[in-house]
Amino acid sequence: MKVFLNSEFMSRDEARISPDDRGFLFSDGAYEVIRSINGKLFRPEEHFSRLERSLRELRISGIEIESLKQIPEKLIAYNDLTDGDATVYIQITRGEAPRKHAFPDRRTAPTIYACASVFCPIREKFQKGVKIILVPDTRWSRCDIKSVALLPNILANQQAKESGAEEAVFVRNGTVTEGTHTNFCAVYGGELLTHPLSNRILGGITRNVVLDICREQNIPFREFPVFEGELRAAEEMMIVGTTTDVMPVVEVDGRRVKDGKPGPITRKLMEAFQKMVYRSR
Amino acid sequence: MKVFLNSEFMSRDEARISPDDRGFLFSDGAYEVIRSINGKLFRPEEHFSRLERSLRELRISGIEIESLKQIPEKLIAYNDLTDGDATVYIQITRGEAPRKHAFPDRRTAPTIYACASVFCPIREKFQKGVKIILVPDTRWSRCDIKSVALLPNILANQQAKESGAEEAVFVRNGTVTEGTHTNFCAVYGGELLTHPLSNRILGGITRNVVLDICREQNIPFREFPVFEGELRAAEEMMIVGTTTDVMPVVEVDGRRVKDGKPGPITRKLMEAFQKMVYRSR
Repeated sequence: MKVFLNSEFMSRDEARISPDDRGFLFSDGAYEVIRSINGKLFRPEEHFSRLERSLRELRISGIEIESLKQIPEKLIAYNDLTDGDATVYIQITRGEAPRKHAFPDRRTAPTIYACASVFCPIREKFQKGVKIILVPDTRWSRCDIKSVALLPNILANQQAKESGAEEAVFVRNGTVTEGTHTNFCAVYGGELLTHPLSNRILGGITRNVVLDICREQNIPFREFPVFEGELRAAEEMMIVGTTTDVMPVVEVDGRRVKDGKPGPITRKLMEAFQKMVYRSR
Repeated sequence: MKVFLNSEFMSRDEARISPDDRGFLFSDGAYEVIRSINGKLFRPEEHFSRLERSLRELRISGIEIESLKQIPEKLIAYNDLTDGDATVYIQITRGEAPRKHAFPDRRTAPTIYACASVFCPIREKFQKGVKIILVPDTRWSRCDIKSVALLPNILANQQAKESGAEEAVFVRNGTVTEGTHTNFCAVYGGELLTHPLSNRILGGITRNVVLDICREQNIPFREFPVFEGELRAAEEMMIVGTTTDVMPVVEVDGRRVKDGKPGPITRKLMEAFQKMVYRSR
């Protein structure tokens, strides 16, 4: 397995960083996960521009986004992942420096780490739908930045796993924000609702694609929060994300969503999304 | 410079971790900073029991706290820091594992990293007092866990530095919670106020010591939030912490605290604290 670290490709075992990296000491970094299908990246430009935005918001400088763009395809090729589904992970941190909260010396080089993995979407989950649990949104108030400060996300995701659920979805002040690594959508009266872009959610690439499909197929939608108290009345629900695609949700906290089967709008979006992703197959 | 990594002491340059460590990918870890004076640790038991609590709250298992207790003194000795002030840093993460939000295989060994540094308290700051700025408390809602998910703290601390201030102090819902790496106290009518222990602040060791001194010296105190709207009326303010000791605050957001000089209760606490810390000198 070959990975990329700073300026070169190397075997995973060779890739070593200093524990004084600010990514390790302070969660001082941002990341992206990009989907690859048969060697072709899905919406790489959107991922790179989101990464650029995260770095700008965190004021991590010294990265030429253009120079990163060749890394994913090379990782896919070097790791024989040109056939089938894979994901590429890219993380940038503020680099290695003596531990101090404030930013280090301007000459500190950011750390760049990237790796690729096989990805196996489980067909059954898309056919039958998945369970989610609701958890309090304990996260910080800049969830629009795709940072590696993911501690609340992993704790919530672990809770989901232990409940036999696919995902934990956060609730803040009575509104459903998003999942630990997905955006959330629900359907009311044939209209798809998803939390508006704000500091409370990550602007998901898959979320964008879903809204684009809604526009194309004249599916009514609104970027407006789903209220926790109205979840019972939802006709359909789904979670969407780079490693989740469009996935039907059929149970919330042990309670069925309608008849417990993926609904018509979810199936429509799921199919259109799959078609788009696998277009190049 | 010798550091400790996993099971051995080694030179700082040799200490290398995998970028797949969950500390690096997910900020999935906890830490402590312990003060050392002339080779003697200040309140190590309290730091280790807080570390134990953080690990328990994060459900990071596989660490025998007892086995860690010899590390700080050895680091102090190996690095010739037995004379004067130093700090020991200890971080534990959930270890190296393929990237997935939920906890990895139970057999995954946690990563242990520890290092020691010279520490130079700046006398002038204690004599003249320091400036702070107020910033919105954007952090997650488990600030009682001393985790490495410190991104909001470093962004706020950097903002303080750029404003020429010593520290940024967080305000949440109109109440002053704590600083980026300090607790905050203010004096009203001769009574010291500091935020009560809750999920909104870290239970600081120095904060404990300060309250103990108040008890001993019959200084009235109350664990009750300081309201942002009443900050102007404060007679004295201070920030307290392991690398800050008891430090007078004489300016908030460019506005003087009273006459802009460290007040009598602050000086009393500062002296008593210094005496306690340097008792072994």
